[in-house]
Order: sequence, then structure tokens, then C-alpha cells
Amino acid sequence: MTESLRTVDIIAAKRDGRALTENQISHFIQGYADGSIPDYQAAAWCMATFLNGMTPQETGYLTRAMIHSGDVMDLSLTSGPFVDKHSTGGVGDKLSLILAPIVAACGVKVPMMSGRALGHTGGTLDKLDAIPGYTTALTPERFAQGVAEVGFAMTGQSEKVVPADRKMYALRDVIATVESIPLITASILSKKFAEGSDALVMDVKCGRGAFMKTPEAARALAESLVRTGESLGRKVVAVLTDMSEPLGRMVGNFLEVEESVACLQGQGPADVMEITLRLAAWMVVAAGIEPNVDQALVRCQRAIEDGSAMAKFRENLVFQGGSLDEFDAMLGTARANYSVELNAESSGFVEGIDAFSVGMAGVALGVGRDTASDPVEPLAGIEVLKKIGEPVTAGEPLLRLWAEDKERLEAGLARIQSSVSLSKTAPQLKDSLILEEMSSK
Amino acid sequence: MTESLRTVDIIAAKRDGRALTENQISHFIQGYADGSIPDYQAAAWCMATFLNGMTPQETGYLTRAMIHSGDVMDLSLTSGPFVDKHSTGGVGDKLSLILAPIVAACGVKVPMMSGRALGHTGGTLDKLDAIPGYTTALTPERFAQGVAEVGFAMTGQSEKVVPADRKMYALRDVIATVESIPLITASILSKKFAEGSDALVMDVKCGRGAFMKTPEAARALAESLVRTGESLGRKVVAVLTDMSEPLGRMVGNFLEVEESVACLQGQGPADVMEITLRLAAWMVVAAGIEPNVDQALVRCQRAIEDGSAMAKFRENLVFQGGSLDEFDAMLGTARANYSVELNAESSGFVEGIDAFSVGMAGVALGVGRDTASDPVEPLAGIEVLKKIGEPVTAGEPLLRLWAEDKERLEAGLARIQSSVSLSKTAPQLKDSLILEEMSSK
Repeated sequence: MTESLRTVDIIAAKRDGRALTENQISHFIQGYADGSIPDYQAAAWCMATFLNGMTPQETGYLTRAMIHSGDVMDLSLTSGPFVDKHSTGGVGDKLSLILAPIVAACGVKVPMMSGRALGHTGGTLDKLDAIPGYTTALTPERFAQGVAEVGFAMTGQSEKVVPADRKMYALRDVIATVESIPLITASILSKKFAEGSDALVMDVKCGRGAFMKTPEAARALAESLVRTGESLGRKVVAVLTDMSEPLGRMVGNFLEVEESVACLQGQGPADVMEITLRLAAWMVVAAGIEPNVDQALVRCQRAIEDGSAMAKFRENLVFQGGSLDEFDAMLGTARANYSVELNAESSGFVEGIDAFSVGMAGVALGVGRDTASDPVEPLAGIEVLKKIGEPVTAGEPLLRLWAEDKERLEAGLARIQSSVSLSKTAPQLKDSLILEEMSSK
Repeated sequence: MTESLRTVDIIAAKRDGRALTENQISHFIQGYADGSIPDYQAAAWCMATFLNGMTPQETGYLTRAMIHSGDVMDLSLTSGPFVDKHSTGGVGDKLSLILAPIVAACGVKVPMMSGRALGHTGGTLDKLDAIPGYTTALTPERFAQGVAEVGFAMTGQSEKVVPADRKMYALRDVIATVESIPLITASILSKKFAEGSDALVMDVKCGRGAFMKTPEAARALAESLVRTGESLGRKVVAVLTDMSEPLGRMVGNFLEVEESVACLQGQGPADVMEITLRLAAWMVVAAGIEPNVDQALVRCQRAIEDGSAMAKFRENLVFQGGSLDEFDAMLGTARANYSVELNAESSGFVEGIDAFSVGMAGVALGVGRDTASDPVEPLAGIEVLKKIGEPVTAGEPLLRLWAEDKERLEAGLARIQSSVSLSKTAPQLKDSLILEEMSSK
């Protein structure tokens, strides 16, 4: 089979389940990015890729082609290795806010580009925007300076980075090809590597509140990320984590920042701390600072205990324009106008909390958004008063909802009514939320 | 699974291999035809259909939706049943010109809409245009009148008939989804049923000179056509025929008309006559005129012997504007300016004639066209002087090429140089070119 660069031949090859060459993939992505290959040809190609898959090597070619479609971050103000973390998204997922300062305190350089809330999952940028004065709109130069001086910086994705992925993602959304493992893999990795990361630690969440609903689907994505990383000669670690209840006790923008501060002070909920420390430890290993996860875990815990992680958090807050005085005054006091509690109808134990319903209630309250242009409310949110396994008596509050007006409060309450299930006997608790770990060679 | 009419859900259902409902398919085709569903969504849907297939029932829904996207012929000037024949296209395939007058002489009403040459296969309309004065551009009224008065009429496809198929075919061509059995089936049947046919006899050609290269592919298409016809309550007969050498001894426009006249006079080559009579007999059966193919064959043969088929041919020629005097004067005399012969290099027997190469040589000579807007030469073509199995001595001519200028003649000769293979011993001849027959209930 000779390598043809005719667009229709490239589509036909993928249709027939053949592996594409690097030339074919880069020709296709370049053509799609510059408009010489129209949406309808890309659509047929995406569907063929969805149904016939890609090898890790092809996915690596695709990732590289995506990276080359736009700008690549220049972090040469300091030396790496640069390590980032990415999550497939969950409800109550504030992990980036906690682990970036922890690993920065351990000496890792973290160029972190994050997204905004969409659907039932929250967005790191929306949470950071709840801090008075804090800006996530950094110039590339200021971003590089933050990584060099503070050890980490937080920003949104530039439109100039991987424009091919941006264009293809919008297309995939309307042609039912979002859930393609190789296309998701290339989309994640191209963004992370284009922003300057040398290595990536992935939190692949799994469960009803997550993008990947089953362990099989989560494992397939994790494997694809790790193998594709290998094919590109980059370190990728994937940690599969359970997402069957919301992470921690806070779901909201400022509420989650507040809980992140508690975590950095050593007072975080067990589920958040377990996953955060595990991911942070892998980042420390990926940066070559510690030889194994056990030793890295000790170092990360020490960064919390000695206050160095908290200090990095505050240093970043000031670097990105935040006001420490105003922020400190808000902690524990800043709440939305209206609140309501959802009470237990009977006594027993919390058996389950439907993270998806909690996430959708968050959208109704103003935490997240239905469409990309909707604004969000910094103070709205949900407090999870009882986590899975905790005992409750009839009439005791299970959840507390916060909103800026009564309509939103009622809309949130309506979505959450039956999200907590109770049992008569104490449910068997999982030993760990870490389901599996994979690392590239 | 509830039936969703959201376009993205319809694409996702086909992506997941689910059968679509009639509502979903008609919504999709209507939306595509009126432009409310864009090309890129149709492209993803075509690729999902290509890879996951369709049941005969879904293909029936698709056929019906295609028919309803445009005008339907009104043949109420006379009463049916109306029976048409369609071929997947071959080299030297002049069967329509012969069988239409035969079955019309037997009392069948044939509303025949044909195509033009494209690629290596010829087109019935281009052949008819080689007759002086003959027009295939009939108004719908004139077409219906021809069917009513003569028993058959020949015309091109109107742009108003199945516009959805026309649009989708152009799309499929550039997204590598032409060779999809259900999409081909719906494309063929929708055109034939929209032009007013009640029943259809399909010539599914198989072999190197045909669209379907293998018996398996040809059989799959034949089955799909017959089963889809059943799901629509229409009679469809599929006859699988061998297309490993060009049909008959003439490949060209006027040359093939001339050979058709010979066939109607009872002097046609055996291969052309075998397939023509078989297809014609099935049309007579499909029209309910004879109860079985054997009796129908006798009636068709009689229409040749008693001159009634030839009389119908001449009646149609006059009805469609042709000049009998000029036509009769051309028979056996009208040839292109230049000719050349390809001679045998050794003695032996003709073992094979590559129909695809002969077809492509025809394009070079001016018989067919590379792109839809190219003109064709009425008198250019190829005479097959030795058919498979015939003995030759070294230096004897195998093929004779005709062209209007020397450049074209040489281009044709270059494409045909090694198209005839010879063997020392007489090859085993096939008993019949009819490989298989299928009929809907």
C-alpha cells in the first residue's frame, strides 16, 4: 500500500481500519486547520476514527500534528522539567488548586492551563476568578515568569495553542464523535505538551459523576494516554480514581477555593487529600525529584506540614493580582444570599450521593453553566454535610445549597431532591479511591 | 430507546449500530435535502452507515425518504405495470438499447431513465445521442406519452427527481463512502421508483470490468436490492452476470447502437444475447405477462424473430426525433477518421480481455469522459475482433481502435497494449454468463 496524501484516500484508509502514516495525519490536520480540507471530510474521518480506532503511534502522530497547528509556549525563562496535571473532570474537583502549590513547594515547575466549567463538571478558572483581584488572563511572558518565580502559574488556554484541536472539538460535538479514545487522547496531550509540559500526570475519573462511566472505559483512556505518551517519548502517568460521590464537602467556586485552603492547612477531607497527594507524588516523581511514589508522598506531606505549600499558594495569589487581605476576610464568611438544606427523611447511613445530580444542581445554582457564554456565580454552591458512610438521623441536614436568588435556589433543590440514598446499615466503605495506576516507560 | 429526532442522536444511533426508525431517516433526509442538516453531519452519518450497515427495512425507509425529496413521474397516460431495468455498469454494455424494444414488443411498459458515461463504463444516453436527430431531453409529458404510445421511452434523469440522492452522492464521492451497499441500494431504487417503475430488473455485473469486483460483493448488493424491494412491497429481480471481457464486439457510442441493431435482427454476439434475453424475460415476468422465465424467454425470442422488437426500436427512434434515413445510411459505414489495429504477438487462443483497460482506452479515444462536463465522440470506439476462446495466429488483429485524431488514437492504444492475454491451449469456456438470480417475493 503506497502512502497517498489525497484526502479521500486518507479517509478510505481509516475507513478500512488501516494505520495512517505520520505524513498522512499531518497533511490531514494541517489541511483541516488551514481550511483546505472542509468540515465534511473531517467529519467522515472522525467517524471512521471513532469506529476503527488508532494505534498509540498514530495517536502520537495526531498529537504532534495538533501541537504543530499553533503556537507552543516558551518557558525558557527557567529550566524544567515542567510537569502538569490534567483531570477528565469531576464534581467538587478542586485538586489543581491544592496540588500545584504542594509540588511547587517540592521544586516542580508547573505551567498549568485550565478550563472553565461546562456541563455538570466545574472549571478551575471559574474557581480562581472567585478570588478578589485574581486574574487568569496572563500574557505568555507573565505566565512563563510565574512558572519561573513562583514555581507554578494558572491560566486559560490561548486561542493560538492547538487551533486544530479547538476546531475539531467543536465539530466532534455535533457529529457524535466526542467519546473517541484516540481523539480524546490527542486533544488532551496536544494541549498539555503545547503549553510546555515535559510530563503529565492524568487523573482519569471513573463513575457516574465522571466523563468515563465505567472502569473499562476509564482504563482504555488511561492506557491510550500512557502508550501515546510513550510513542512521543514523554512521561505520562495515569491514575484511575473513583468518582461516585462529589469530591470533598464543597461544590462551588469560592466554596472550593476555601476547601482547598483547608487542605493546604492539613485539614482537608480524606478523599480529596488521598487523591491530591497521590497525583502530587507522581508529579514529583515525573520531575525526577524523588525516585519513587512512596518517598515523593512523604515529601508532599511535609510541604503541607511545614507550611511551604500554603506559602506557595499565597505567593501565586499575589503574583496573579489577588488581594490577600480581601481573600483572608472572605474565608468562612463569604456566602451567597440564600440557602436551603435538604434533610434526611429517615435515619440510617448515607449509602450514595449521586455526583452527576449534584453537578447538575450546581449548574442550576450558578456554579457552572449550560452554554459556554453563561456567567457563573462565585458564591453559589453546595455543601455536602454528610459523606458516604456517615450516620444520619431523620430530619438532619444532608446537603446545604447556596444561591444568589430564590428561583435558582429552588431550581437547584429540584435537581437534587433524590440524589442522596440512605441505608439501614452502615455501607462497606472502599479502602481507597485509587483504582489503578499506569506509567509510561 | 426512545426515538430522538435530534440530528446528533440519529448519527450516534447509527454509530452504535442501532437500526433507525422511519421517522428518524425521513427527518434526516428531509433536513439534508432542505439544507437544515449540514454536509458535515451527513458525512458522519454516511461513514457510520458505511461501517455499520442498515437492515433492508432501514434501506427501504431511506429509499422512500429519497423518493419524497423530489418530484415523482406521472405516467397516468397509460396503465402499468411499469418495469425498468438497471445495470451497475459495464464495458460494451448496450443491453438497454436492445431489451427495451424487445419487452415493449411483448407488451411491457418501460419508463427508462439512463445515465451518461463516467469512468470506464459507457452511458446509454451518449449512445442514443449518436443517432442523428435523436433527443433524450424529453419533457415529463413527452416521456409519459412515449411510454404510453410506443411502450418505452428513453430520457435522462431530471434534476427534480430525488434531489437528496443527487446531493448525497456528490458528498459520498469525496468522503470515501461510495461503496456502501445500503446507500447504493437506496440510490438506485429511489431513482427507479421515482421515475414511475413498479418493478425493477437489475443487472448486477461482477468482475474486473464491473463496479463490483468480486462475486461476494455483487451478491451482497443483489441481496440488498431484492430485500429492500420486498420491504417496500415492490418486485425487484437481481441477475448476477459475469463481466470479465467487454460485452459483445463493439465498445463505443455509435458502434454499440449498430451492434444493438444486429442483435434485434437476430445477429448479435452470443454473450450479449444471453444476458439481454434473460433480463428481458424477467421483465416480462415482473410485468405479469408470462408466469415464468422459460415461457417469457420464448416470447422474447419470438419478438426478435417476427421483427416486432426491431419495429419498436424504429418507432421509438422516430418518436424521439431521430431520422431513419440518415440512421440507416450510417449503419456499417459511419466510422471515425483514424483507426489502428492491435495485432497478436504469437499464435494461440484468446484467454482474457481486460474489460477495465478496454474501458479506459475508450475514455482516451473519446467514447467516455474523465469528468462529467467532457464531450464524447459519437464515432470513436473499439472493435473486439477476437473474443475469449477464439484462436489467433501471430500478426492477426485482436482489436481495432477508432478515433477522430491521431493523438487520441495513440493514447487509446497505449492504454490497451497488454489488455489481451493469449494461451497456447484453448481455455475452458464458461457455460453461461448468468452467475445467479434472485427475486423478491
